Amino acid sequence: MSRDSREDVPLRNIALTLSYDGTGFLGWQRQTGKAKTGRTVQEAVETALGRMHGHAVPLIGSGRTDSGVHAVGQVANFFTDIASIPAERFVPALNSMLPQDVRVVGSREADPLFHARFSARSRTYRFFLHCGARPFAHELPYVWHIGRWPSLPRVNAMAAYLSGEIDCTTFAAAGDQSASKSRYLFGAHFHPEGDRVVFEISANAFLWRMVRSVVGTIVHLDGIGADPSEFARVLRAKDRSLAGPTAPGNGLFLWNVRY
Amino acid sequence: MSRDSREDVPLRNIALTLSYDGTGFLGWQRQTGKAKTGRTVQEAVETALGRMHGHAVPLIGSGRTDSGVHAVGQVANFFTDIASIPAERFVPALNSMLPQDVRVVGSREADPLFHARFSARSRTYRFFLHCGARPFAHELPYVWHIGRWPSLPRVNAMAAYLSGEIDCTTFAAAGDQSASKSRYLFGAHFHPEGDRVVFEISANAFLWRMVRSVVGTIVHLDGIGADPSEFARVLRAKDRSLAGPTAPGNGLFLWNVRY
Repeated sequence: MSRDSREDVPLRNIALTLSYDGTGFLGWQRQTGKAKTGRTVQEAVETALGRMHGHAVPLIGSGRTDSGVHAVGQVANFFTDIASIPAERFVPALNSMLPQDVRVVGSREADPLFHARFSARSRTYRFFLHCGARPFAHELPYVWHIGRWPSLPRVNAMAAYLSGEIDCTTFAAAGDQSASKSRYLFGAHFHPEGDRVVFEISANAFLWRMVRSVVGTIVHLDGIGADPSEFARVLRAKDRSLAGPTAPGNGLFLWNVRY
Repeated sequence: MSRDSREDVPLRNIALTLSYDGTGFLGWQRQTGKAKTGRTVQEAVETALGRMHGHAVPLIGSGRTDSGVHAVGQVANFFTDIASIPAERFVPALNSMLPQDVRVVGSREADPLFHARFSARSRTYRFFLHCGARPFAHELPYVWHIGRWPSLPRVNAMAAYLSGEIDCTTFAAAGDQSASKSRYLFGAHFHPEGDRVVFEISANAFLWRMVRSVVGTIVHLDGIGADPSEFARVLRAKDRSLAGPTAPGNGLFLWNVRY
């Protein structure tokens, strides 16, 4: 189809909900240049979209996820010139062309102005800590095995500080490009689930590797028996060197994005 | 250590409980000859045992699991001449040398006559059916996605026939080597668990691919709305050609082995 004929077709804006197993991916974002060393989720979906459309179709994600990070509710949008297919039929059509570790779990027609990244009002992540002595092998790609039970009152007292407009400089990774390090946090908490403790956090947006840095810091402070106020002190210091180790990416799931 | 000096050490019989993610394995059994084309669980554990001992240590499993089949409670035993290590310390010692997709979850000293295969009185398997429309990507390696809910009364009425001394010829894969196809079945049932239906079956032993053939047959008969008595007819016919399709290995877990 030539570019001219495509321009006659009104473009529909399609919003996808995506689930992926991050184990086999370098993360969300397409790799460019000569440094390509592995698969990315964006590239996998764009390849399938390109095959469906017969031309390149760029995909806009709500945000990047890192290498090894999973998603059950990533949202992404693209503009389609295929008039003949109802929006919800992109689910089976794309799934038939995608590898098993990326699944489209929903598809709907969005407003022409909808933008998966800029329209997002909140993102929610979950981080899974495995607390038992002996995790099963099939659980390991999806948890951080800490092998002990944190004190739930203590870690929840720390998580309670993660609410409101907060300068998150302490938890920004060295490469974070954001001009402002302030984010609006809707709240965070830990809850037990079988052999696991689940950390859930929602915010308008996150700095690079911020969730993993928050989790690593809280788990570290809990492990040394620190008072919850110590976490507040670290948070308010806006000093990266006071953060604990960064928790591994494979325990992290992008859970949902709200618009 | 020379062979002579080893013979002076009383050998202890160590029983391991093993968990593995079958995704990256060709199954349990060590491959021999030139046809080696991938990893096996037995080989991975024997390699670690060999490094610990400084000589080859054969490992006896309770039974073979197929390519893609997982385990949370496989049992295996070996004889050790290392006198200095308490039995339970084989857990961290082996785990430090094993790949992440095989984990030792228990270790104990067993009777010298204990044999993981011949001493076993029952094996229990679980098979996970994913019934929802849209499984998440990280669930797919561990379920068979059938995308609909079976009739629980119907499939449980079929499973009720899987009890007592039964000639299982109908469900024996073409390559099964067993002299007798009779097995003592302790029972089987289906129960719902979130978006999934779990099939659990226990028997003194199973024929090759028997559990997957049973699951495939019941799911097939349920899908065409067959009366539960039809399953009994298929079972009693001892005719392989009446069995339904074999369910995929990745939905199957060796759950435990009793002695």
